[in-house]
Amino acid sequence: MKSFRTELTFVTKKKCEFINITRQIARALEQSGIKEGLLLCNAMHITASVFINDNEPGLHEDMEKWLQQLAPHDPASQYRHNLAGEDNAEAHLHRQIMGREVVIAVTNGQLDFGPWEQVFYGEFDGCRKKRVLIKIIGE
Amino acid sequence: MKSFRTELTFVTKKKCEFINITRQIARALEQSGIKEGLLLCNAMHITASVFINDNEPGLHEDMEKWLQQLAPHDPASQYRHNLAGEDNAEAHLHRQIMGREVVIAVTNGQLDFGPWEQVFYGEFDGCRKKRVLIKIIGE
Amino acid sequence: MKSFRTELTFVTKKKCEFINITRQIARALEQSGIKEGLLLCNAMHITASVFINDNEPGLHEDMEKWLQQLAPHDPASQYRHNLAGEDNAEAHLHRQIMGREVVIAVTNGQLDFGPWEQVFYGEFDGCRKKRVLIKIIGE
Repeated sequence: MKSFRTELTFVTKKKCEFINITRQIARALEQSGIKEGLLLCNAMHITASVFINDNEPGLHEDMEKWLQQLAPHDPASQYRHNLAGEDNAEAHLHRQIMGREVVIAVTNGQLDFGPWEQVFYGEFDGCRKKRVLIKIIGE
Repeated sequence: MKSFRTELTFVTKKKCEFINITRQIARALEQSGIKEGLLLCNAMHITASVFINDNEPGLHEDMEKWLQQLAPHDPASQYRHNLAGEDNAEAHLHRQIMGREVVIAVTNGQLDFGPWEQVFYGEFDGCRKKRVLIKIIGE
Repeated sequence: MKSFRTELTFVTKKKCEFINITRQIARALEQSGIKEGLLLCNAMHITASVFINDNEPGLHEDMEKWLQQLAPHDPASQYRHNLAGEDNAEAHLHRQIMGREVVIAVTNGQLDFGPWEQVFYGEFDGCRKKRVLIKIIGE
């Protein structure tokens, strides 16, 4: 069994941002030399997500608006988490909806994807350094 | 390390439908000959889910109604994604709630499940051909 | 390839409860002797979750309140699932939001985590025996 590990780093300009990381993941897989196995890609921070959905900016705007409807930022005082001096409780909730991680099949040295699958880093409390982990195991 | 890959195909009759795929996954595992490892099962499309929950039709009706409350289909014009000629933005959101994939432990050649765990394909934009991937690695 | 399997058992005092299981998972990893691989940790029951988020009691109260807003317990009669004598439909829905499982990278014999990642068992229909599965594969 082979294993491979690498990290991606992000500092977004906005609090909430979605970044397509499919190409960086494919590059990591190539570097690993693994042909058959499983690839885990997860946010290493708890106010961020890694998820697979459509590479369509309109949908990403819909997602941001929808997450604010399900768990609004304001008023910040509605969350006990924010009593301790934080104001990012809603970002912790958004990450539960969007998920922490994806596990991707590796077949013939490729990400084994359907036609529209693209991987995104979802930032919900940005403007500071955040990391994503890629771990691949296989042969 | 052994690996095994297969696909399931679905064309649902309704836009939203939940289909029990536990038996098909168990069959794939048997075919693979793998006794200890991990099994990944994921939707290959971005308006569908694979998830584990109860095999109870009343609950599935509750889920469909609940997803429509959290992200309603109508009016379609509330979503920017639909401005480009689509009308399935809500299906992309439902898939985030229900999840893309499950990872299942394989122990003694069996799906290592609790008493009520059953795997479902969740279709949110059906009536067309969609695929599910099963990838198993282990020994 | 090595594999390792163990279970954790919980009987919570309250219907809804979040329990930090990070140490128990780290102990299982140590027992396994696996240095590089993937660790799956999943609820074996369909009204419970395993998830990664912040070890902050205020946030856990926010989560419980938020889940009740997204899928309230009362009135129980709003759910078809409850017509069959159950009253836990909302617990099945909460588990979809919070997720069934986490997959964690194992690197140098450690849980490969970011600075704040902690693993929680999320119980939504407690006061009875429930199990969590830990499965590790690697070398």
